[in-house]
Amino acid sequence: MDMKKIESLINKFSTQRDWEKFHNPKNLAMALSVEASELVEIFQWLDFEQAANLQGEKKEHAKQEIADIAVYLIRICMHYNIDLEEAIVEKMKLNEKKYPLFDEQGNKIEYGKKK
Amino acid sequence: MDMKKIESLINKFSTQRDWEKFHNPKNLAMALSVEASELVEIFQWLDFEQAANLQGEKKEHAKQEIADIAVYLIRICMHYNIDLEEAIVEKMKLNEKKYPLFDEQGNKIEYGKKK
Amino acid sequence: MDMKKIESLINKFSTQRDWEKFHNPKNLAMALSVEASELVEIFQWLDFEQAANLQGEKKEHAKQEIADIAVYLIRICMHYNIDLEEAIVEKMKLNEKKYPLFDEQGNKIEYGKKK
Amino acid sequence: MDMKKIESLINKFSTQRDWEKFHNPKNLAMALSVEASELVEIFQWLDFEQAANLQGEKKEHAKQEIADIAVYLIRICMHYNIDLEEAIVEKMKLNEKKYPLFDEQGNKIEYGKKK
Repeated sequence: MDMKKIESLINKFSTQRDWEKFHNPKNLAMALSVEASELVEIFQWLDFEQAANLQGEKKEHAKQEIADIAVYLIRICMHYNIDLEEAIVEKMKLNEKKYPLFDEQGNKIEYGKKK
Repeated sequence: MDMKKIESLINKFSTQRDWEKFHNPKNLAMALSVEASELVEIFQWLDFEQAANLQGEKKEHAKQEIADIAVYLIRICMHYNIDLEEAIVEKMKLNEKKYPLFDEQGNKIEYGKKK
Repeated sequence: MDMKKIESLINKFSTQRDWEKFHNPKNLAMALSVEASELVEIFQWLDFEQAANLQGEKKEHAKQEIADIAVYLIRICMHYNIDLEEAIVEKMKLNEKKYPLFDEQGNKIEYGKKK
Repeated sequence: MDMKKIESLINKFSTQRDWEKFHNPKNLAMALSVEASELVEIFQWLDFEQAANLQGEKKEHAKQEIADIAVYLIRICMHYNIDLEEAIVEKMKLNEKKYPLFDEQGNKIEYGKKK
Protein backbone atom coordinates (compact mmCIF):
# COMPACT_ATOMS: atom_id res chain seq x y z
CA MET A 1 0.00 0.00 0.00
CA ASP A 2 1.39 3.35 -1.05
CA MET A 3 1.02 5.21 2.26
CA LYS A 4 2.42 8.47 0.94
CA LYS A 5 -0.27 8.55 -1.76
CA ILE A 6 -3.05 7.73 0.69
CA GLU A 7 -1.83 10.28 3.24
CA SER A 8 -1.68 12.87 0.48
CA LEU A 9 -5.27 12.10 -0.57
CA ILE A 10 -6.48 12.39 3.01
CA ASN A 11 -4.55 15.56 3.65
CA LYS A 12 -5.76 17.26 0.47
CA PHE A 13 -9.37 16.30 1.10
CA SER A 14 -9.40 17.75 4.62
CA THR A 15 -7.42 20.87 3.81
CA GLN A 16 -9.62 21.81 0.83
CA ARG A 17 -12.69 21.67 3.05
CA ASP A 18 -11.02 23.40 6.01
CA TRP A 19 -11.84 20.38 8.17
CA GLU A 20 -8.41 20.09 9.77
CA LYS A 21 -9.72 22.11 12.72
CA PHE A 22 -12.10 19.28 13.63
CA HIS A 23 -9.41 16.59 13.43
CA ASN A 24 -8.27 16.47 17.02
CA PRO A 25 -7.36 12.84 17.85
CA LYS A 26 -10.19 12.70 20.41
CA ASN A 27 -12.68 13.46 17.64
CA LEU A 28 -10.92 11.19 15.15
CA ALA A 29 -11.06 8.26 17.60
CA MET A 30 -14.80 8.86 18.05
CA ALA A 31 -15.31 8.99 14.27
CA LEU A 32 -13.28 5.80 13.83
CA SER A 33 -15.41 3.96 16.39
CA VAL A 34 -18.58 5.21 14.67
CA GLU A 35 -17.35 3.82 11.34
CA ALA A 36 -16.43 0.54 13.05
CA SER A 37 -20.04 0.32 14.28
CA GLU A 38 -21.33 0.97 10.78
CA LEU A 39 -19.40 -2.13 9.74
CA VAL A 40 -20.81 -4.06 12.72
CA GLU A 41 -24.32 -2.96 11.73
CA ILE A 42 -24.02 -4.89 8.45
CA PHE A 43 -23.45 -8.10 10.40
CA GLN A 44 -25.67 -7.64 13.45
CA TRP A 45 -28.61 -9.83 12.42
CA LEU A 46 -26.70 -12.23 10.12
CA ASP A 47 -25.80 -15.80 10.93
CA PHE A 48 -22.21 -16.93 10.40
CA GLU A 49 -22.80 -18.32 6.93
CA GLN A 50 -24.49 -15.14 5.71
CA ALA A 51 -21.65 -13.08 7.22
CA ALA A 52 -18.96 -15.18 5.57
CA ASN A 53 -20.60 -14.80 2.16
CA LEU A 54 -21.56 -11.16 1.70
CA GLN A 55 -22.43 -10.47 -1.92
CA GLY A 56 -23.21 -7.57 -4.22
CA GLU A 57 -24.40 -4.38 -2.56
CA LYS A 58 -23.82 -5.65 0.97
CA LYS A 59 -20.20 -6.53 0.15
CA GLU A 60 -19.72 -3.15 -1.54
CA HIS A 61 -21.20 -1.48 1.56
CA ALA A 62 -18.78 -3.38 3.81
CA LYS A 63 -15.88 -2.37 1.56
CA GLN A 64 -16.83 1.29 1.91
CA GLU A 65 -17.08 1.09 5.70
CA ILE A 66 -13.70 -0.65 5.80
CA ALA A 67 -12.25 2.23 3.78
CA ASP A 68 -13.77 4.80 6.15
CA ILE A 69 -12.22 3.03 9.13
CA ALA A 70 -8.83 2.92 7.38
CA VAL A 71 -8.97 6.63 6.53
CA TYR A 72 -9.56 7.66 10.15
CA LEU A 73 -6.94 5.21 11.37
CA ILE A 74 -4.32 6.58 8.98
CA ARG A 75 -5.40 10.14 9.84
CA ILE A 76 -4.67 9.45 13.53
CA CYS A 77 -1.27 7.95 12.64
CA MET A 78 -0.52 11.10 10.63
CA HIS A 79 -1.23 13.25 13.68
CA TYR A 80 1.19 11.34 15.93
CA ASN A 81 3.76 10.47 13.25
CA ILE A 82 3.08 6.79 13.82
CA ASP A 83 4.39 4.42 11.13
CA LEU A 84 1.44 2.02 10.78
CA GLU A 85 3.46 -0.86 9.33
CA GLU A 86 6.00 -0.63 12.15
CA ALA A 87 3.19 -0.40 14.73
CA ILE A 88 1.60 -3.58 13.35
CA VAL A 89 4.87 -5.54 13.25
CA GLU A 90 5.73 -4.52 16.83
CA LYS A 91 2.26 -5.40 18.09
CA MET A 92 2.36 -8.81 16.40
CA LYS A 93 5.61 -9.48 18.28
CA LEU A 94 3.91 -8.57 21.56
CA ASN A 95 1.00 -10.85 20.65
CA GLU A 96 3.46 -13.71 19.98
CA LYS A 97 4.76 -13.28 23.54
CA LYS A 98 1.31 -12.87 25.05
CA TYR A 99 0.00 -16.03 23.39
CA PRO A 100 3.04 -18.35 23.25
CA LEU A 101 3.16 -21.57 21.26
CA PHE A 102 4.08 -24.92 22.77
CA ASP A 103 5.85 -27.84 21.11
CA GLU A 104 4.67 -31.44 21.36
CA GLN A 105 6.47 -31.92 24.68
CA GLY A 106 4.59 -28.94 26.12
CA ASN A 107 7.64 -26.66 26.07
CA LYS A 108 7.15 -23.05 25.16
CA ILE A 109 8.51 -22.25 21.70
CA GLU A 110 10.38 -18.98 21.88
CA TYR A 111 9.51 -16.27 19.43
CA GLY A 112 11.93 -16.13 16.52
CA LYS A 113 13.00 -19.76 16.91
CA LYS A 114 12.30 -21.79 13.83
CA LYS A 115 8.92 -23.53 13.78
CA MET B 1 3.20 -0.62 3.66
CA ASP B 2 4.13 -4.14 2.62
CA MET B 3 0.67 -5.73 2.69
CA LYS B 4 1.91 -9.19 1.67
CA LYS B 5 4.26 -9.25 4.66
CA ILE B 6 1.56 -8.06 7.08
CA GLU B 7 -0.99 -10.53 5.72
CA SER B 8 1.57 -13.29 6.06
CA LEU B 9 2.25 -12.35 9.71
CA ILE B 10 -1.47 -12.30 10.49
CA ASN B 11 -2.12 -15.56 8.70
CA LYS B 12 0.76 -17.38 10.38
CA PHE B 13 -0.20 -16.12 13.84
CA SER B 14 -3.81 -17.31 13.53
CA THR B 15 -2.99 -20.61 11.87
CA GLN B 16 -0.37 -21.60 14.45
CA ARG B 17 -2.91 -21.09 17.23
CA ASP B 18 -5.77 -22.73 15.34
CA TRP B 19 -7.78 -19.55 15.70
CA GLU B 20 -8.97 -19.39 12.09
CA LYS B 21 -12.17 -21.12 13.15
CA PHE B 22 -13.16 -18.06 15.22
CA HIS B 23 -12.44 -15.59 12.43
CA ASN B 24 -15.85 -15.31 10.84
CA PRO B 25 -16.30 -11.71 9.60
CA LYS B 26 -19.15 -11.20 12.07
CA ASN B 27 -16.77 -11.95 14.94
CA LEU B 28 -13.92 -9.98 13.35
CA ALA B 29 -16.13 -6.90 13.00
CA MET B 30 -17.08 -7.18 16.68
CA ALA B 31 -13.41 -7.52 17.67
CA LEU B 32 -12.50 -4.53 15.49
CA SER B 33 -15.14 -2.37 17.17
CA VAL B 34 -13.92 -3.50 20.60
CA GLU B 35 -10.36 -2.44 19.71
CA ALA B 36 -11.70 0.89 18.38
CA SER B 37 -13.34 1.46 21.77
CA GLU B 38 -10.06 0.67 23.53
CA LEU B 39 -8.59 3.54 21.54
CA VAL B 40 -11.56 5.76 22.44
CA GLU B 41 -11.08 4.87 26.12
CA ILE B 42 -7.65 6.55 26.10
CA PHE B 43 -9.28 9.83 25.08
CA GLN B 44 -12.60 9.73 26.93
CA TRP B 45 -11.75 12.05 29.83
CA LEU B 46 -9.07 14.16 28.07
CA ASP B 47 -9.52 17.71 26.84
CA PHE B 48 -8.47 18.52 23.27
CA GLU B 49 -4.99 19.72 24.20
CA GLN B 50 -4.23 16.60 26.22
CA ALA B 51 -5.55 14.44 23.37
CA ALA B 52 -3.43 16.22 20.76
CA ASN B 53 -0.27 15.74 22.84
CA LEU B 54 -0.22 12.17 24.08
CA GLN B 55 3.22 11.29 25.43
CA GLY B 56 5.18 8.30 26.67
CA GLU B 57 3.16 5.33 27.86
CA LYS B 58 -0.16 6.79 26.76
CA LYS B 59 1.14 7.35 23.23
CA GLU B 60 2.62 3.85 23.17
CA HIS B 61 -0.74 2.49 24.36
CA ALA B 62 -2.55 4.36 21.57
CA LYS B 63 -0.06 2.98 19.03
CA GLN B 64 -0.79 -0.56 20.17
CA GLU B 65 -4.54 -0.09 19.95
CA ILE B 66 -4.13 1.39 16.46
CA ALA B 67 -2.16 -1.70 15.46
CA ASP B 68 -4.88 -3.99 16.86
CA ILE B 69 -7.51 -2.15 14.83
CA ALA B 70 -5.37 -2.41 11.68
CA VAL B 71 -4.82 -6.14 12.17
CA TYR B 72 -8.55 -6.90 12.39
CA LEU B 73 -9.27 -4.55 9.48
CA ILE B 74 -6.70 -6.29 7.27
CA ARG B 75 -7.95 -9.69 8.45
CA ILE B 76 -11.46 -8.82 7.24
CA CYS B 77 -10.06 -7.63 3.89
CA MET B 78 -8.20 -10.96 3.57
CA HIS B 79 -11.48 -12.84 4.07
CA TYR B 80 -13.27 -10.99 1.28
CA ASN B 81 -10.27 -10.48 -1.02
CA ILE B 82 -10.64 -6.72 -0.66
CA ASP B 83 -7.64 -4.63 -1.78
CA LEU B 84 -7.46 -2.05 1.03
CA GLU B 85 -5.58 0.57 -0.98
CA GLU B 86 -8.08 0.34 -3.83
CA ALA B 87 -10.99 0.49 -1.35
CA ILE B 88 -9.58 3.69 0.19
CA VAL B 89 -8.95 5.37 -3.18
CA GLU B 90 -12.47 4.52 -4.39
CA LYS B 91 -14.06 5.74 -1.16
CA MET B 92 -12.13 9.02 -1.28
CA LYS B 93 -13.56 9.56 -4.78
CA LEU B 94 -17.07 8.99 -3.43
CA ASN B 95 -16.36 11.42 -0.59
CA GLU B 96 -15.21 14.04 -3.12
CA LYS B 97 -18.60 13.74 -4.82
CA LYS B 98 -20.54 13.67 -1.56
CA TYR B 99 -18.84 16.81 -0.25
CA PRO B 100 -18.18 18.89 -3.39
CA LEU B 101 -15.99 21.96 -3.47
CA PHE B 102 -17.17 25.32 -4.72
CA ASP B 103 -15.14 28.02 -6.45
CA GLU B 104 -15.28 31.70 -5.53
CA GLN B 105 -18.35 32.24 -7.71
CA GLY B 106 -20.16 29.46 -5.85
CA ASN B 107 -19.95 26.99 -8.75
CA LYS B 108 -19.35 23.37 -7.93
CA ILE B 109 -15.81 22.29 -8.82
CA GLU B 110 -16.00 18.92 -10.51
CA TYR B 111 -13.88 16.11 -9.20
CA GLY B 112 -10.72 15.62 -11.24
CA LYS B 113 -10.72 19.19 -12.59
CA LYS B 114 -7.57 21.06 -11.71
CA LYS B 115 -7.74 23.01 -8.46
CA MET C 1 -37.02 1.01 38.72
CA ASP C 2 -36.65 3.75 41.27
CA MET C 3 -35.01 6.40 39.07
CA LYS C 4 -34.75 8.97 41.85
CA LYS C 5 -32.74 6.54 43.96
CA ILE C 6 -30.46 5.57 41.08
CA GLU C 7 -29.92 9.20 40.07
CA SER C 8 -29.09 10.03 43.65
CA LEU C 9 -26.52 7.20 43.85
CA ILE C 10 -24.89 8.35 40.60
CA ASN C 11 -24.88 11.97 41.63
CA LYS C 12 -23.38 11.29 45.06
CA PHE C 13 -20.69 9.02 43.66
CA SER C 14 -19.50 11.61 41.12
CA THR C 15 -19.74 14.58 43.44
CA GLN C 16 -17.76 12.93 46.23
CA ARG C 17 -14.91 12.22 43.82
CA ASP C 18 -15.10 15.64 42.14
CA TRP C 19 -15.66 13.89 38.80
CA GLU C 20 -18.53 16.11 37.67
CA LYS C 21 -16.03 18.25 35.74
CA PHE C 22 -15.30 15.31 33.42
CA HIS C 23 -18.96 14.55 32.76
CA ASN C 24 -19.57 16.58 29.65
CA PRO C 25 -22.06 14.66 27.45
CA LYS C 26 -19.39 14.25 24.75
CA ASN C 27 -17.21 12.38 27.25
CA LEU C 28 -20.17 10.48 28.71
CA ALA C 29 -21.21 9.28 25.24
CA MET C 30 -17.66 8.05 24.64
CA ALA C 31 -17.63 6.26 28.00
CA LEU C 32 -21.01 4.70 27.27
CA SER C 33 -19.78 3.35 23.93
CA VAL C 34 -16.65 1.96 25.61
CA GLU C 35 -18.81 0.10 28.13
CA ALA C 36 -21.03 -1.17 25.30
CA SER C 37 -17.90 -2.61 23.66
CA GLU C 38 -16.90 -4.28 26.92
CA LEU C 39 -20.23 -6.08 26.73
CA VAL C 40 -19.62 -6.95 23.06
CA GLU C 41 -16.18 -8.30 23.99
CA ILE C 42 -17.81 -11.02 26.12
CA PHE C 43 -19.65 -12.31 23.05
CA GLN C 44 -17.14 -11.75 20.25
CA TRP C 45 -15.84 -15.32 19.87
CA LEU C 46 -18.96 -17.16 21.12
CA ASP C 47 -21.41 -19.03 18.96
CA PHE C 48 -25.13 -18.32 19.40
CA GLU C 49 -25.74 -21.16 21.82
CA GLN C 50 -22.87 -20.14 24.07
CA ALA C 51 -24.07 -16.53 23.95
CA ALA C 52 -27.63 -17.47 24.85
CA ASN C 53 -26.47 -19.49 27.86
CA LEU C 54 -23.88 -17.43 29.73
CA GLN C 55 -23.25 -18.90 33.15
CA GLY C 56 -21.41 -18.10 36.37
CA GLU C 57 -18.59 -15.57 36.11
CA LYS C 58 -19.31 -14.71 32.49
CA LYS C 59 -22.94 -13.93 33.29
CA GLU C 60 -21.88 -11.89 36.32
CA HIS C 61 -19.39 -10.03 34.10
CA ALA C 62 -22.13 -9.27 31.56
CA LYS C 63 -24.40 -8.04 34.36
CA GLN C 64 -21.70 -5.61 35.51
CA GLU C 65 -21.12 -4.26 32.02
CA ILE C 66 -24.88 -3.82 31.58
CA ALA C 67 -24.95 -1.82 34.82
CA ASP C 68 -22.05 0.37 33.63
CA ILE C 69 -23.90 1.11 30.38
CA ALA C 70 -27.08 1.96 32.32
CA VAL C 71 -25.21 4.31 34.66
CA TYR C 72 -23.72 6.36 31.81
CA LEU C 73 -27.05 6.34 29.98
CA ILE C 74 -28.90 7.66 33.03
CA ARG C 75 -26.09 10.17 33.67
CA ILE C 76 -26.59 11.60 30.16
CA CYS C 77 -30.37 11.78 30.72
CA MET C 78 -29.70 13.65 33.98
CA HIS C 79 -27.62 16.22 32.09
CA TYR C 80 -30.36 16.98 29.56
CA ASN C 81 -33.34 16.45 31.88
CA ILE C 82 -34.53 13.59 29.69
CA ASP C 83 -37.16 11.31 31.22
CA LEU C 84 -35.88 7.89 30.15
CA GLU C 85 -39.24 6.12 30.45
CA GLU C 86 -40.95 8.77 28.34
CA ALA C 87 -38.11 8.65 25.78
CA ILE C 88 -38.50 4.87 25.44
CA VAL C 89 -42.30 5.01 25.08
CA GLU C 90 -42.08 7.76 22.44
CA LYS C 91 -39.39 5.89 20.50
CA MET C 92 -41.38 2.67 20.54
CA LYS C 93 -44.26 4.59 18.96
CA LEU C 94 -41.93 5.84 16.23
CA ASN C 95 -40.70 2.29 15.69
CA GLU C 96 -44.29 1.08 15.35
CA LYS C 97 -44.75 3.58 12.51
CA LYS C 98 -41.39 2.81 10.92
CA TYR C 99 -42.04 -0.93 10.86
CA PRO C 100 -45.82 -1.22 10.32
CA LEU C 101 -47.76 -4.44 10.69
CA PHE C 102 -49.97 -5.86 7.97
CA ASP C 103 -53.12 -7.93 8.32
CA GLU C 104 -53.83 -11.11 6.38
CA GLN C 105 -55.15 -9.13 3.40
CA GLY C 106 -51.87 -7.17 3.26
CA ASN C 107 -53.43 -3.98 4.65
CA LYS C 108 -51.37 -1.88 7.02
CA ILE C 109 -52.62 -2.15 10.60
CA GLU C 110 -52.61 1.32 12.13
CA TYR C 111 -50.82 1.86 15.39
CA GLY C 112 -53.19 1.82 18.33
CA LYS C 113 -55.82 -0.24 16.52
CA LYS C 114 -56.59 -3.48 18.28
CA LYS C 115 -54.54 -6.46 17.11
CA MET D 1 -39.62 3.70 35.58
CA ASP D 2 -42.30 1.08 35.09
CA MET D 3 -40.11 -1.80 33.91
CA LYS D 4 -43.03 -4.21 33.46
CA LYS D 5 -44.70 -1.80 31.06
CA ILE D 6 -41.49 -1.21 29.09
CA GLU D 7 -40.71 -4.93 28.93
CA SER D 8 -44.23 -5.58 27.73
CA LEU D 9 -43.89 -2.94 24.96
CA ILE D 10 -40.56 -4.42 23.83
CA ASN D 11 -41.86 -7.97 23.94
CA LYS D 12 -45.03 -7.17 22.00
CA PHE D 13 -43.14 -5.23 19.33
CA SER D 14 -40.68 -8.05 18.65
CA THR D 15 -43.23 -10.84 18.81
CA GLN D 16 -45.65 -9.16 16.40
CA ARG D 17 -42.87 -8.83 13.82
CA ASP D 18 -41.47 -12.33 14.45
CA TRP D 19 -38.10 -10.78 15.28
CA GLU D 20 -37.48 -12.82 18.41
CA LYS D 21 -35.44 -15.26 16.32
CA PHE D 22 -32.84 -12.55 15.70
CA HIS D 23 -32.58 -11.56 19.35
CA ASN D 24 -29.72 -13.73 20.48
CA PRO D 25 -27.70 -11.78 23.09
CA LYS D 26 -24.68 -11.75 20.75
CA ASN D 27 -26.74 -9.89 18.16
CA LEU D 28 -28.40 -7.68 20.78
CA ALA D 29 -25.01 -6.63 22.17
CA MET D 30 -23.90 -5.72 18.63
CA ALA D 31 -27.08 -3.72 18.06
CA LEU D 32 -26.65 -1.95 21.41
CA SER D 33 -23.09 -0.92 20.51
CA VAL D 34 -24.27 0.32 17.12
CA GLU D 35 -26.90 2.51 18.82
CA ALA D 36 -24.26 3.76 21.28
CA SER D 37 -22.16 4.84 18.29
CA GLU D 38 -25.14 6.63 16.78
CA LEU D 39 -25.22 8.68 19.99
CA VAL D 40 -21.43 9.24 19.78
CA GLU D 41 -21.85 10.39 16.17
CA ILE D 42 -23.94 13.36 17.33
CA PHE D 43 -21.03 14.56 19.46
CA GLN D 44 -18.01 13.63 17.35
CA TRP D 45 -17.22 17.06 15.87
CA LEU D 46 -18.67 19.21 18.69
CA ASP D 47 -16.68 21.12 21.27
CA PHE D 48 -17.61 20.72 24.93
CA GLU D 49 -19.86 23.75 25.06
CA GLN D 50 -21.83 22.66 21.99
CA ALA D 51 -22.13 19.16 23.44
CA ALA D 52 -23.37 20.42 26.79
CA ASN D 53 -26.07 22.54 25.14
CA LEU D 54 -27.76 20.41 22.48
CA GLN D 55 -30.96 22.05 21.32
CA GLY D 56 -33.98 21.35 19.14
CA GLU D 57 -33.58 18.62 16.56
CA LYS D 58 -30.16 17.57 17.77
CA LYS D 59 -31.43 17.12 21.31
CA GLU D 60 -34.45 15.21 20.03
CA HIS D 61 -32.10 13.02 17.97
CA ALA D 62 -29.97 12.31 21.05
CA LYS D 63 -33.11 11.44 23.02
CA GLN D 64 -34.11 8.90 20.37
CA GLU D 65 -30.68 7.27 20.32
CA ILE D 66 -30.73 7.10 24.13
CA ALA D 67 -34.09 5.32 23.92
CA ASP D 68 -32.73 2.84 21.35
CA ILE D 69 -29.80 2.04 23.64
CA ALA D 70 -32.16 1.56 26.60
CA VAL D 71 -34.43 -0.76 24.62
CA TYR D 72 -31.58 -3.11 23.64
CA LEU D 73 -30.17 -2.97 27.16
CA ILE D 74 -33.51 -3.93 28.70
CA ARG D 75 -33.99 -6.60 26.02
CA ILE D 76 -30.69 -8.23 27.04
CA CYS D 77 -31.72 -8.08 30.72
CA MET D 78 -34.99 -9.78 29.77
CA HIS D 79 -33.06 -12.62 28.12
CA TYR D 80 -30.95 -13.33 31.21
CA ASN D 81 -33.56 -12.43 33.83
CA ILE D 82 -31.33 -9.63 35.10
CA ASP D 83 -33.01 -7.06 37.36
CA LEU D 84 -31.52 -3.83 36.00
CA GLU D 85 -32.09 -1.79 39.16
CA GLU D 86 -30.40 -4.44 41.29
CA ALA D 87 -27.52 -4.70 38.80
CA ILE D 88 -26.95 -0.94 38.98
CA VAL D 89 -27.06 -0.82 42.79
CA GLU D 90 -24.63 -3.75 43.08
CA LYS D 91 -22.24 -2.23 40.53
CA MET D 92 -22.28 1.14 42.28
CA LYS D 93 -21.21 -0.68 45.47
CA LEU D 94 -18.31 -2.29 43.58
CA ASN D 95 -17.37 1.13 42.17
CA GLU D 96 -17.35 2.57 45.71
CA LYS D 97 -14.79 -0.07 46.69
CA LYS D 98 -12.77 0.32 43.49
CA TYR D 99 -12.50 4.09 43.88
CA PRO D 100 -12.37 4.61 47.66
CA LEU D 101 -12.74 7.98 49.33
CA PHE D 102 -10.19 9.35 51.77
CA ASP D 103 -10.78 11.62 54.75
CA GLU D 104 -8.71 14.69 55.50
CA GLN D 105 -6.07 12.61 57.28
CA GLY D 106 -5.68 10.46 54.17
CA ASN D 107 -7.43 7.46 55.71
CA LYS D 108 -9.67 5.40 53.48
CA ILE D 109 -13.36 5.98 54.28
CA GLU D 110 -15.10 2.62 54.31
CA TYR D 111 -18.17 2.14 52.20
CA GLY D 112 -21.37 2.54 54.18
CA LYS D 113 -19.75 4.62 56.93
CA LYS D 114 -21.35 8.00 57.34
CA LYS D 115 -19.80 10.76 55.27
